[in-house]
Amino acid sequence: MLAAVFQVRGLDTREPTLNVLLWQRALDPEQGKWSLPGGQLEDDEDLTSSVRRQLADKVDLRELAHLEQLAVFSDPRRVPGVRTIASTFLGLVPSPATPALPPDTRWHPVNDLPAMAFDHAPMVEHARNRLVAKMSYTNIGFALAPKEFAISTLRDIYSAALGHQVDATNLQRVLERRKVITRTGTTARSGRSGGRPAALFGFTESRYRVTDEFAALRPPG
Amino acid sequence: MLAAVFQVRGLDTREPTLNVLLWQRALDPEQGKWSLPGGQLEDDEDLTSSVRRQLADKVDLRELAHLEQLAVFSDPRRVPGVRTIASTFLGLVPSPATPALPPDTRWHPVNDLPAMAFDHAPMVEHARNRLVAKMSYTNIGFALAPKEFAISTLRDIYSAALGHQVDATNLQRVLERRKVITRTGTTARSGRSGGRPAALFGFTESRYRVTDEFAALRPPG
Repeated sequence: MLAAVFQVRGLDTREPTLNVLLWQRALDPEQGKWSLPGGQLEDDEDLTSSVRRQLADKVDLRELAHLEQLAVFSDPRRVPGVRTIASTFLGLVPSPATPALPPDTRWHPVNDLPAMAFDHAPMVEHARNRLVAKMSYTNIGFALAPKEFAISTLRDIYSAALGHQVDATNLQRVLERRKVITRTGTTARSGRSGGRPAALFGFTESRYRVTDEFAALRPPG
Repeated sequence: MLAAVFQVRGLDTREPTLNVLLWQRALDPEQGKWSLPGGQLEDDEDLTSSVRRQLADKVDLRELAHLEQLAVFSDPRRVPGVRTIASTFLGLVPSPATPALPPDTRWHPVNDLPAMAFDHAPMVEHARNRLVAKMSYTNIGFALAPKEFAISTLRDIYSAALGHQVDATNLQRVLERRKVITRTGTTARSGRSGGRPAALFGFTESRYRVTDEFAALRPPG
């Protein structure tokens, strides 16, 4: 298993970016290149338990807000030597979390990846594409956002994850209409621009669901 | 790999149903029980090539309108003996197709499955849930429908696949608004109820895409 673990980082800077967690290979094959975290499946575990164990063991990452299976990469020539099939996962870490990382492991902007080992660059791209698609018809943003946030912060998170600027007013309108986010009733201590305090919002659920409004196809009742 | 291949059958009857293709095990383990088609990955192929080959070899099913990877089933105790991990697929066959089947293979209504081998019943349920979810935010219905159809036929296909009645007028309105279906300009020879001829429609694309309208998150331009 290999996991593409994403987090939006740099929310306190002018350019928040979507980052992926990578470790640098100390040995051949592909010495010096960067890899997704993961490892071999043990006899007594299933894939999801295994990827959770490996993320916890290797990168001290026990607090994933979302973890889901993505594609299996099975090209017979994807790695040298004994044939290895890689089942990939998408993991999401909410924004203020700062998990401790071992020295060989680091966050990298998805749009500026270092030299990647094997087929790990296409795996990151596949995971990012899945995340982008799911942001448009599910509530998956909860797994990238803080518990409470101003709309401007959520706009920065969505913009970074999607890879293009999103309008804060439209975003608020759509997510409120879909009941994905709701006002918490509190305000931020001070607006970023020094204006009036910003209203704070939270996701209504911290469990993944499809939010798309296709009412004509919904079950009755 | 194991594939849940679905088709809506019985469109000329009062109760069209979603069916899944199963074969009956002639030998132990699980003799007499019903299995999803599939088999072992060979050294020189990837998963998707392999499942296509096996469906073509075993069930003479070369005309899948849609095939996609679903979950990997990896419980260490899912089958007796040597540990086997199953990568599952969803396959869709359009409605009028009648692929030739070997004698041990048969379509079964998804809502009335026979005694199933191993964990194949949960696999069918997982695949059906995925199909239902995707019908609400993608154009995946193209892979179940004929090239040309009256809205009443499409209503029957959607109702069977979703497992509940869908209103034909709402369905037409939503799918036209999303530009998923379009009028072909022709009519059926005679309406089912003997009334005026029904207008015929077709899907605008026969390639899978997300159709959800989440305009606020779309890339600019």
